[in-house]
Amino acid sequence: MQYRIEKDTMGEVKVPADKLWGAQTERSFENFKIGPKASMPLEIIYGFAYLKKAAAYTNCELGVLSEEKRDLIAKVCDEILEGKHDDQFPLVIWQTGSGTQSNMNVNEVVANRAHQLAGKTIGEGEKTLQPNDDVNKSQSSNDTFPTGMHIAAYKKLIENTLPGVEQLQKTFAKKAADFKDVVKIGRTHFMDATPLTLGQEFSGYAAQLEHGIKALKNTLPHLAELALGGTAVGTGLNTPKGYDVKVADYIAKFTDLPFVTAKNKFEALAAHDAFVESHGALKQLAVSLNKIANDVRMLASGPRSGIGEITIPANEPGSSIMPGKVNPTQCEALTMVCAQVIGNDMAIAVGGMQGQFELNVFKPVMAANFLQSAQLIGDACVSFDVHCAQGIEPNLEVIKRQLNNSLMLVTALNPKIGYYKAAEIANTAHKNGTTLKEEGVNLGYLTAEEFEEWVKPEDMV
Amino acid sequence: MQYRIEKDTMGEVKVPADKLWGAQTERSFENFKIGPKASMPLEIIYGFAYLKKAAAYTNCELGVLSEEKRDLIAKVCDEILEGKHDDQFPLVIWQTGSGTQSNMNVNEVVANRAHQLAGKTIGEGEKTLQPNDDVNKSQSSNDTFPTGMHIAAYKKLIENTLPGVEQLQKTFAKKAADFKDVVKIGRTHFMDATPLTLGQEFSGYAAQLEHGIKALKNTLPHLAELALGGTAVGTGLNTPKGYDVKVADYIAKFTDLPFVTAKNKFEALAAHDAFVESHGALKQLAVSLNKIANDVRMLASGPRSGIGEITIPANEPGSSIMPGKVNPTQCEALTMVCAQVIGNDMAIAVGGMQGQFELNVFKPVMAANFLQSAQLIGDACVSFDVHCAQGIEPNLEVIKRQLNNSLMLVTALNPKIGYYKAAEIANTAHKNGTTLKEEGVNLGYLTAEEFEEWVKPEDMV
Amino acid sequence: MQYRIEKDTMGEVKVPADKLWGAQTERSFENFKIGPKASMPLEIIYGFAYLKKAAAYTNCELGVLSEEKRDLIAKVCDEILEGKHDDQFPLVIWQTGSGTQSNMNVNEVVANRAHQLAGKTIGEGEKTLQPNDDVNKSQSSNDTFPTGMHIAAYKKLIENTLPGVEQLQKTFAKKAADFKDVVKIGRTHFMDATPLTLGQEFSGYAAQLEHGIKALKNTLPHLAELALGGTAVGTGLNTPKGYDVKVADYIAKFTDLPFVTAKNKFEALAAHDAFVESHGALKQLAVSLNKIANDVRMLASGPRSGIGEITIPANEPGSSIMPGKVNPTQCEALTMVCAQVIGNDMAIAVGGMQGQFELNVFKPVMAANFLQSAQLIGDACVSFDVHCAQGIEPNLEVIKRQLNNSLMLVTALNPKIGYYKAAEIANTAHKNGTTLKEEGVNLGYLTAEEFEEWVKPEDMV
Amino acid sequence: MQYRIEKDTMGEVKVPADKLWGAQTERSFENFKIGPKASMPLEIIYGFAYLKKAAAYTNCELGVLSEEKRDLIAKVCDEILEGKHDDQFPLVIWQTGSGTQSNMNVNEVVANRAHQLAGKTIGEGEKTLQPNDDVNKSQSSNDTFPTGMHIAAYKKLIENTLPGVEQLQKTFAKKAADFKDVVKIGRTHFMDATPLTLGQEFSGYAAQLEHGIKALKNTLPHLAELALGGTAVGTGLNTPKGYDVKVADYIAKFTDLPFVTAKNKFEALAAHDAFVESHGALKQLAVSLNKIANDVRMLASGPRSGIGEITIPANEPGSSIMPGKVNPTQCEALTMVCAQVIGNDMAIAVGGMQGQFELNVFKPVMAANFLQSAQLIGDACVSFDVHCAQGIEPNLEVIKRQLNNSLMLVTALNPKIGYYKAAEIANTAHKNGTTLKEEGVNLGYLTAEEFEEWVKPEDMV
Repeated sequence: MQYRIEKDTMGEVKVPADKLWGAQTERSFENFKIGPKASMPLEIIYGFAYLKKAAAYTNCELGVLSEEKRDLIAKVCDEILEGKHDDQFPLVIWQTGSGTQSNMNVNEVVANRAHQLAGKTIGEGEKTLQPNDDVNKSQSSNDTFPTGMHIAAYKKLIENTLPGVEQLQKTFAKKAADFKDVVKIGRTHFMDATPLTLGQEFSGYAAQLEHGIKALKNTLPHLAELALGGTAVGTGLNTPKGYDVKVADYIAKFTDLPFVTAKNKFEALAAHDAFVESHGALKQLAVSLNKIANDVRMLASGPRSGIGEITIPANEPGSSIMPGKVNPTQCEALTMVCAQVIGNDMAIAVGGMQGQFELNVFKPVMAANFLQSAQLIGDACVSFDVHCAQGIEPNLEVIKRQLNNSLMLVTALNPKIGYYKAAEIANTAHKNGTTLKEEGVNLGYLTAEEFEEWVKPEDMV
Repeated sequence: MQYRIEKDTMGEVKVPADKLWGAQTERSFENFKIGPKASMPLEIIYGFAYLKKAAAYTNCELGVLSEEKRDLIAKVCDEILEGKHDDQFPLVIWQTGSGTQSNMNVNEVVANRAHQLAGKTIGEGEKTLQPNDDVNKSQSSNDTFPTGMHIAAYKKLIENTLPGVEQLQKTFAKKAADFKDVVKIGRTHFMDATPLTLGQEFSGYAAQLEHGIKALKNTLPHLAELALGGTAVGTGLNTPKGYDVKVADYIAKFTDLPFVTAKNKFEALAAHDAFVESHGALKQLAVSLNKIANDVRMLASGPRSGIGEITIPANEPGSSIMPGKVNPTQCEALTMVCAQVIGNDMAIAVGGMQGQFELNVFKPVMAANFLQSAQLIGDACVSFDVHCAQGIEPNLEVIKRQLNNSLMLVTALNPKIGYYKAAEIANTAHKNGTTLKEEGVNLGYLTAEEFEEWVKPEDMV
Repeated sequence: MQYRIEKDTMGEVKVPADKLWGAQTERSFENFKIGPKASMPLEIIYGFAYLKKAAAYTNCELGVLSEEKRDLIAKVCDEILEGKHDDQFPLVIWQTGSGTQSNMNVNEVVANRAHQLAGKTIGEGEKTLQPNDDVNKSQSSNDTFPTGMHIAAYKKLIENTLPGVEQLQKTFAKKAADFKDVVKIGRTHFMDATPLTLGQEFSGYAAQLEHGIKALKNTLPHLAELALGGTAVGTGLNTPKGYDVKVADYIAKFTDLPFVTAKNKFEALAAHDAFVESHGALKQLAVSLNKIANDVRMLASGPRSGIGEITIPANEPGSSIMPGKVNPTQCEALTMVCAQVIGNDMAIAVGGMQGQFELNVFKPVMAANFLQSAQLIGDACVSFDVHCAQGIEPNLEVIKRQLNNSLMLVTALNPKIGYYKAAEIANTAHKNGTTLKEEGVNLGYLTAEEFEEWVKPEDMV
Repeated sequence: MQYRIEKDTMGEVKVPADKLWGAQTERSFENFKIGPKASMPLEIIYGFAYLKKAAAYTNCELGVLSEEKRDLIAKVCDEILEGKHDDQFPLVIWQTGSGTQSNMNVNEVVANRAHQLAGKTIGEGEKTLQPNDDVNKSQSSNDTFPTGMHIAAYKKLIENTLPGVEQLQKTFAKKAADFKDVVKIGRTHFMDATPLTLGQEFSGYAAQLEHGIKALKNTLPHLAELALGGTAVGTGLNTPKGYDVKVADYIAKFTDLPFVTAKNKFEALAAHDAFVESHGALKQLAVSLNKIANDVRMLASGPRSGIGEITIPANEPGSSIMPGKVNPTQCEALTMVCAQVIGNDMAIAVGGMQGQFELNVFKPVMAANFLQSAQLIGDACVSFDVHCAQGIEPNLEVIKRQLNNSLMLVTALNPKIGYYKAAEIANTAHKNGTTLKEEGVNLGYLTAEEFEEWVKPEDMV
């Protein structure tokens, strides 16, 4: 391989000649061989691209950067956002906990690419842009990395998570309406209970997701707060006056999202409670989705020896050994995602709780877990919606049989004959394997006509 | 011991003669010998007392319960709320997951105590009130237990958690103001960094708690939704028309808290996402408090060989073997609480995710963990505030020495001489054990006068 | 209330006159009003009683304590172990993270009670024993508290957890034998699958618990290592030569458990990985038990509209509104315990990971969570065994019907006609609601006789 | 793109012409667009390659597969293990929870590649091997996927995790020896305490890892148990007699690892407690490593205003804004890994606890989390060792100064003058900012000569 020499404050480093990165990226690449390469999420790199461009505009507007440099920086950032340099960010999550070298990776790529755009050859001539003094002007890793995290996380929630959950929520709401007249047996403690409609059951799922969406939206204002302008420790050292507000405005403009400068920069560097907060809502969604997917799996169980009250689409052969088997695979994928998100919540808490003094140095692990959860929940909701939820249909024959068999219809008699006599009827019918009506009449607590009038499942929902 | 015979639908049970409870309580007491007795939190019992009274008033108003019965029920509920019957609730958390027998425990105690209030002897004569048909009228365990949970949790947050956190938050805000002129060294990566004021450091703590309080308040509307009126499966079977709204109104009135009937009763029985949601905010507070308490412990470390920038009150001898030792014990109690709350969050998630069909049967474990967290956070914040935070004082001598030694003051030179030359100064001073000024002058990058003018810690904050 | 004056190195403190504790206990009692009083587990206090007695014997044997003092200390320790002073330990979990004041609580109670035993009045005359110099001789909180933790935890595992799990394991093994000929439908993905016997199903439960027991026993050697002899930081300062080995021998003798002195005392004070390790096995048991209890609940579901393949004992009326309802309440209690244990595992990890330098100061929270888990798992296994598992019976009629309906019996045809044709038979029968035999013959893939010969559920297990 | 038609029991599917996979892989690829493509770990695919080859050998030896087919299967498996087909496994973790389509992916690739090796064109002519009837012979996804998981996990632990941890453990043991004479101040509660040697401090780290290694090894026998031979539900339907033992032998032979057939196949399919168990040990290691890395970071803090007792290698410029800053980046990477592993432990528990009946359908998520943890811990230990631990050196000047300042040296006086007088000396010296000797003499408790004789830090370790 061909190499060129790059330098930083510690000395010279050999870098592959065809790469845009510089000395610090290369050092980190060599020093952190932990897990697969390039695991730092690209969404964070893109977050950096937005903020570097915004910083350049702000620096220029405030008189500390030339228009020429601003435009060069902005141009490379746009290229990054177009995905043209995805292979220039080789670093891993498991580096310094401030993400410093990922910040430098961006600084170095921007500087070297700008050198090319200026018609020069990397490594030759005076640098068109200095990575630290120009690209990183008025910035520190300590405020840029959390800013990049927030941009990436917020975008992911808006573009992936919320649309996915909302799509599934709408399907459940529609099913709730579609199935509003399908009276079925209820189950509590996984045991037969009084009836409800299948629509009511699905309305519960819709309500869970509605609450989850609301909970997630409640967390967005904290996530919209950007650390940029705090620089090294939150004081904003080496930034021009007014920089923090303006740079957040530019980021809001470039991303079309309602970002603002953080009210307290010390909190924004030393803690990432905004991530803990928003991911708490993702965990809540995972808890909800796990319940829902598990219900769907159980309602669809069978085909002959399960609950079998609904059918779900048969998407693939279910077994490599059992011919003709069909499985609730979308439920399984979704519940596996839930398990992951619940685990990620703990990783984020463990990272979030260990900040020290002016900096939390668990930024990359918190960001990576958050982005994974946000992606997985959004994707899995869409997958579950398209390949399962939309195709759910009631199995009316089974539903009717199981409803009419139920001993718990006896509950309708409480107001008529009291709980204790009603219990006697149910217990006797259970023991004898008979019907409620038979035993009610036998026990002399009511007439057959009264039973027919009082015990109507359709009136019990 | 003396016993009397009580009956339920399964037959006769011997109950200690001096107890107010009945057959079902006794069955559960015998069948679930798991952990210490009477572990079901009293707060939940009190929640039941509010709702039983509210149900009696509503039932009466809607014409399905006599005024006489209403008043008897209300009177016993008031006695329970006054703490007069605390020893009548012997059941454990680890019973049926719907809390059915705790509901029956309340029903039975109310019925038997009402019998006494009516001037009769328990176990003799016709029951003045039927536990199921009167005390439990228009109710099911499935809607009462979650209602009791929500009342207990909401009250605990309002009366204990929020006041405790707010008290500590105010102290941090006051310290931020008090210490606004104390310039000190900053630390990132636990390494010397650029300066900030001690007030700024504490403003970060105040901001964290402010965000946490807001996050917790965001969850209250979901927690204010009551399941009552859903009865067995959410349909409201055997309730009079208008019951759910009215009973929530009565509960709101009796508790003076803004409870409302749940918009969707199926969600309110089958899922307890409101608990997951609110406890997510408690976990966020735990994450914040852990960071803060850890910082305080480290800032106060020493007295001679630590960081030592602040002093905290010496509340007790710190060691049974090391004479004269003083320890940051309040920090330790608080961080242990944080560990517990983070664990509880997982217990709640694991319970919340496993609801099935029309009922979640992890209600008691979710409620108990929630109430513990809410209590501990409130109490620990008050304890930490009174015995530690309020007494924090800067150790000005140490602060000054450590500030002036710092090599990171060199950062102020970036805009003057550039990052690379500044780094050279710092690296040289570090290697030689000298000062920045010496090396800056030696290297010819600035004059002593320029150094004095450019590097002023008080201007860097 | 009457008070007396007690003193420690910080000065005078008023202590209730009828209490045996001294100044340091009282300080901690006043300074840590967090959660319910006296939450420090008594098991830890008893652990202290064993170790104080052992230390006294060792100190005496090594010539640094008189026989008279030894015997006084031992006598009070024996009284404590008999439960005579349970009300003398008022402190909470949420105190200093080293448990120093709980160590002092024991030291003070032993000293004051010894004073009484010596015929004197507490607070009058020269102290018969000094809490620090005599009772705490050759000890520090930093090595006594972890020793007390290990004694308490080991005893709990041996006396409660393991017997409980083993009892349940034996029942499952017995059921596996009892049900070895009950051929039933299998279920994978909660969908009908090829048959197995009910005994095989239960053998899986037995195997899970057998593995769990083994995993737990694997952790005991680490837990058997005692910190005592390390004193303040692990060096054993102020202990006589040979003390650590001998004191562990005495503890082993007094408890009849195989305790040994820790190979590395620095690890034993600064980390509690032994707790993390053993509780990891408790978590594994929780994971296993959750699966098992959930299966039992689902297998017993119905009585008419569920899986219904087994019956479980009906222990109490299941519903306050649905007459005659019976629920799998033991399954619910057990799975709630599992949720708690999984949460506790996280609390213990969070505490365990945060030790600093020579001491981990999350000892009380780790100990309390561990002891709770160990108690709950043992108790819940016994409760589940006695009130549920032992009474499980197959519902043969249901089992037979569901077995014979199953389309997955087609799997037996794979070796005869291949997977693809077998799938065609199953799919056609599913579509038409017919039997495998009918469609197999219709499709011309086999004769009725061949079907009868090849598809025998009893040969498929 | 060019396509060909592939078929399964559900019908025809278009597959990219240049791919070796078949219909079922393609269905899963289309149906599960959740997260990044091809996220199913290759280690699992390689596990499949081992087991498919072993199954072919066993089937042949037991007379149910021809030698020709055996050799074809083995040849493709070898190619897979050489990494020649890494791009033929496009499926994601978030598919069916049994991993059925990943099993089929392997079956299809083997069959199609064998067709090529037989000199034919994929999609033309009769299939040389049937994916289900030949490649999957005597197998089910339900026993192959867990077998693949165990092979992958065991190999990763042996080849990556254990060597990495052992390498770091050895370094700590060496440092313990190297630093055995460096007497330094101890710290408990993050406060000055009695002395110990730096070597003793490091011996604690070595001991923690030694215990962790032992704990991990304790779990290997369970992980060595293979499900293969259980087929669909654990009964071994459609396997020849003796198959399970023999196939495990072949796998042991091919992998050179001590695999055996699982004693109970029902447990091996329906639960993955072996993963819970082994990952529990990984979590324990994470807890240990977090403590150690945090200590190292704090001991190395400074360079001028921290603890500063050791120096660690300076590997990269630490800050993009603070010139000359060096940070403990390896500590940060390692503690981030710890946070991830602790989160993964919860994801694995949540998956493990939710098995139902004959199958746990959280296999892929459990496997992926386990493999990530095992990789990260191994890699991070090596990285930390090479780039940090090996280069740790004591900062003798700082160590000496902090030792001699310490007030806790007073502890050596306990046996001479008693705890109370010693405390008075320490408290007075602290208040006056003087030395212990001065105050000891002033208070008249000892002479200067006695002090010199009694208080020797080097005798206190």
